[in-house]
Amino acid sequence: MQQSRFGFSEVSKRTPESPISYFMQQAVENQDIISLAAGLVDTGSLPVQEISSALNDILGDPTKAREALQYGTTQGHLPLREKIAKHLASLDKSSTTFSPKDIVVTTGSQQLLYILSEVLIDEGDIVITEAPSYFVYQAVLAGRGAEVVSIPMDEEGMQIHALEERLKQIEAAGNLPRIKIIYTVDYYQNPSGRTLSLARRKELMALMNRWSNRLRAVIVEDAAYRELRFDGPDIPSLKSMDPENKFVVYAGTFSKPCSPGLKSGYALMPTELVRPILIIKANHDFGSSNLTQHTVDRLLENGDYQKHVLELQEVYGKKSRVMLEALESNFAAYPEVTWTKPTGGMFVWLKLPEHISTGLQSEFLKAAMSEGVLYVPGIFAYRGAGPLPDSEMRITYGDASVDRIREGIHRLKKAYLRVKDTKPAPARTASSPKPALV
Amino acid sequence: MQQSRFGFSEVSKRTPESPISYFMQQAVENQDIISLAAGLVDTGSLPVQEISSALNDILGDPTKAREALQYGTTQGHLPLREKIAKHLASLDKSSTTFSPKDIVVTTGSQQLLYILSEVLIDEGDIVITEAPSYFVYQAVLAGRGAEVVSIPMDEEGMQIHALEERLKQIEAAGNLPRIKIIYTVDYYQNPSGRTLSLARRKELMALMNRWSNRLRAVIVEDAAYRELRFDGPDIPSLKSMDPENKFVVYAGTFSKPCSPGLKSGYALMPTELVRPILIIKANHDFGSSNLTQHTVDRLLENGDYQKHVLELQEVYGKKSRVMLEALESNFAAYPEVTWTKPTGGMFVWLKLPEHISTGLQSEFLKAAMSEGVLYVPGIFAYRGAGPLPDSEMRITYGDASVDRIREGIHRLKKAYLRVKDTKPAPARTASSPKPALV
Ligand SMILES: Cc1ncc(COP(=O)(O)O)c(C=O)c1O
Ligand SMILES: Cc1ncc(COP(=O)(O)O)c(C=O)c1O
Repeated sequence: MQQSRFGFSEVSKRTPESPISYFMQQAVENQDIISLAAGLVDTGSLPVQEISSALNDILGDPTKAREALQYGTTQGHLPLREKIAKHLASLDKSSTTFSPKDIVVTTGSQQLLYILSEVLIDEGDIVITEAPSYFVYQAVLAGRGAEVVSIPMDEEGMQIHALEERLKQIEAAGNLPRIKIIYTVDYYQNPSGRTLSLARRKELMALMNRWSNRLRAVIVEDAAYRELRFDGPDIPSLKSMDPENKFVVYAGTFSKPCSPGLKSGYALMPTELVRPILIIKANHDFGSSNLTQHTVDRLLENGDYQKHVLELQEVYGKKSRVMLEALESNFAAYPEVTWTKPTGGMFVWLKLPEHISTGLQSEFLKAAMSEGVLYVPGIFAYRGAGPLPDSEMRITYGDASVDRIREGIHRLKKAYLRVKDTKPAPARTASSPKPALV
Repeated sequence: MQQSRFGFSEVSKRTPESPISYFMQQAVENQDIISLAAGLVDTGSLPVQEISSALNDILGDPTKAREALQYGTTQGHLPLREKIAKHLASLDKSSTTFSPKDIVVTTGSQQLLYILSEVLIDEGDIVITEAPSYFVYQAVLAGRGAEVVSIPMDEEGMQIHALEERLKQIEAAGNLPRIKIIYTVDYYQNPSGRTLSLARRKELMALMNRWSNRLRAVIVEDAAYRELRFDGPDIPSLKSMDPENKFVVYAGTFSKPCSPGLKSGYALMPTELVRPILIIKANHDFGSSNLTQHTVDRLLENGDYQKHVLELQEVYGKKSRVMLEALESNFAAYPEVTWTKPTGGMFVWLKLPEHISTGLQSEFLKAAMSEGVLYVPGIFAYRGAGPLPDSEMRITYGDASVDRIREGIHRLKKAYLRVKDTKPAPARTASSPKPALV
């Protein structure tokens, strides 16, 4: 934080700048650079016609139009919340539908993550996340002054036995009441592309039941990419395994499966969280854009949303295959480089040999930039004690064209060849400061 | 806060529920009640055609459509920020235009008030507000744990000599660095309808200059109702008297002069606040709805916005005259009842004799509800030490039809007649708890 006339708050001082802004800027300033970093959705498949006709329906009807252009409620448009409840039941092929009273509509699911964290976390409280984890949420946690305990993942997602070991340690230290949230991006995770398997889901819910008389934490199931499934099994949500609505906040969004420009998200949560969330949301904005809520409502009503999701599954499935094929052909000769194989969403997690840093000051990033390709350094997805993995990266096929995906991976290989024989850097530890962001 | 499995944060515990939700609910549940409480805008004059054609322009052009439906930047759509800079210069008839780099677009101006408060205020910090003041902002300040120092108003708005006296006291107590914000709703204030006079504006800016070497506070000029002027002089903003962009955050909104359903607001601020604000906003939502930003951009570009504001000035001017005439004819015989005469915006502030409480538990509110009329109790607009005025209320002609405005005021008179001869209640002091909200 710069020297200033103004006195900044602790929240402000604690909150790190998001790396994404930096990478977005780079990509905007230099169109020759292929960005495999930015978390944009596929621009070409945005549902322009569908949204246009939904808006014409709304604005063509004077009563609906005026309702949509007036203030709405803080909790969100009731018909939309009713449709969301049904939509979630249909995703889970479940016959029990949760109540629209337990749903809150937000300005993207990001706002829900923020407000829920405000409602639950005091400085020093503990939040359990996957390692790696969604870095914007890591920044939120830093702002709240939370202590992050991260649980390793494997191909089946968060390791539930490791989670239970940590719970026992935290309990032994007398800190169990400080655990407020267990956060999982359980479908095609940002950043790793991994999915929590059905077996692990059952283990996690069994654990919650076992610990329920002493653990106060809520599970946040961030399902942002869930509907973008193009391969693999159709796995039910953790929420569907919480029939009494006790343990899980399900955070969903229309940004990924429909349009980020609407910036509409929602959450289904235990009843007793609704009022505290609404009290804080009333102070943030007393309700997200009513017009974009009505738009989503219309798309769910006329079925265009559901149709569009099917198209997107094709689009991302194809782009993911292009990226995976490019990775295979470029890195076949370098088995020390490994990556995940997502079955949905838009992210691949790539690991270089441990001695090659991918961080902001690294030789590898310099090489990549001069080859003309960008990624997000893996370090931003880690927090907590111990040396942080520093030779990983997130790459995305979200917005790049298939040609640019192929060329981008080729450039990444060239960058790798430039640095692969450099000397190992000194090991990074948690106490070494994160690289400055500007 | 109810007993709960979950552990809520200090922020959550400190934040009061907004009274508005309660009153909205009442009005929705009983259509016979005339609500002079809800802060809705005039529904009949919402710019349906204009917004519809703006959206058709955007969505009819594939390039623009895709840009608007994709994620934007955290700071907001640059062409919109450029137009806002010009728009502000034209409102102030000023030849110097501030930079779009110092403008941030938010989800309504409410979000700006919230984030700025997060960025500047730690628990125990001081915020200076008018008395009475906008109650949603009072709730934000309660959530932050701020100490509120309130400065009395008269017909010219905040009393600047009283402000300076308080600054001296606070300085003498060694607390000057704790003052973070001086908050003024300086045009047709919510709730009182009053405007800060030109003379007072000059006094305030002179004070800021005099104290600038030791006072770190920023002025927040909340100009939400500014453009809805139907009478009285066209007064320049405090911002226009801050040519070096040092002292004033100007918070504006498109909710009141255009459409709340777009939920689009903005602020022009000293440069060094921009980055800290964006870092927090990145965690809230990394950018407000891009589609609604593009919509406002188009309305400013094609001139429909400017034309619409002129129409709204007529609409609210007419409705305010209806309300003021109704007040005069109904309360002519009761000179102990007084009210403000706004020259813009949508609020009138009504005072009953001091012994008549207007609070949530009051006989007067009961009488009003059984007569079928609602207002917002004045107590919510006050905070700070000393006995809080409890016999005032905010009434609005914002959304009610002229017939309902007339009938609503008539019912208010009937409610007054029911209670006017009741016994004085014991004096309320700051230490007596605020009435519970549910
Ligand atoms: C895992 C995850 N959660 C939540 C979000 C928030 O998206 P939005 O606020 O647009 O719904 C994102 C966006 O990138 C994400 O990757
Ligand atoms: C004084 C004042 N400021 C700010 C706002 C915020 O409005 P919005 O967030 O819709 O721009 C309001 C809304 O009622 C208001 O009265």
